[in-house]
Amino acid sequence: MRALILIDHGSRRAEANDQLEAIAALVRERGGVYVQIAHMELAAPSLDDALAECVSAGATDVIVVPYFLAPGRHVREDIPHLAAEAASRHPSAQVRVAPPLGVHALLADLVLARADEAR
Amino acid sequence: MRALILIDHGSRRAEANDQLEAIAALVRERGGVYVQIAHMELAAPSLDDALAECVSAGATDVIVVPYFLAPGRHVREDIPHLAAEAASRHPSAQVRVAPPLGVHALLADLVLARADEAR
Repeated sequence: MRALILIDHGSRRAEANDQLEAIAALVRERGGVYVQIAHMELAAPSLDDALAECVSAGATDVIVVPYFLAPGRHVREDIPHLAAEAASRHPSAQVRVAPPLGVHALLADLVLARADEAR
Repeated sequence: MRALILIDHGSRRAEANDQLEAIAALVRERGGVYVQIAHMELAAPSLDDALAECVSAGATDVIVVPYFLAPGRHVREDIPHLAAEAASRHPSAQVRVAPPLGVHALLADLVLARADEAR
């Protein structure tokens, strides 16, 4: 079974953390896939906790998706490091890391949609 | 004539700033609209410079789109403030501020697309 873990930085503001959960809910709906969220710091759950949850739900193929627009140090170094650490504690699952949101036509579509909402 | 200004925080890393330009190019292609970018700090152009560029290109309706995933202080306070300041120097244009990228089905689609790229 495949699972996705969406990971962002994490915030002290509940609203920012709730937003990742809202995106996860949309991904679940659209993708028909098991989805957990994780925060790098400042808020639970950690990537390790999220991976434990996926594994206990039966996931054997887990993809960590960095929920970041741009590839900075968090995306290039910290998240692969956290993922490798968490994977070492859950050897029954293969853990892979996806690219960040990055540059994509869907983001251009979203910019145009938000522009239409300007008041 | 309508113009969009995509604004992000700005970075010392050219790669991060280049990414906003890449999104702007995609928006231009897809939207058939005049698009400029701006950075809040750390890199040029400023919102004021971008608005001047739009106005000299003939824009009378300018929409500032915060290129941020989540609505924090930059989106709620700093960008509206920068936009109002810039607008006061260019009274020939109406300047409006759009919502940030936020929670949207297109982002869920993008998460699923990036997950498929995991190696």
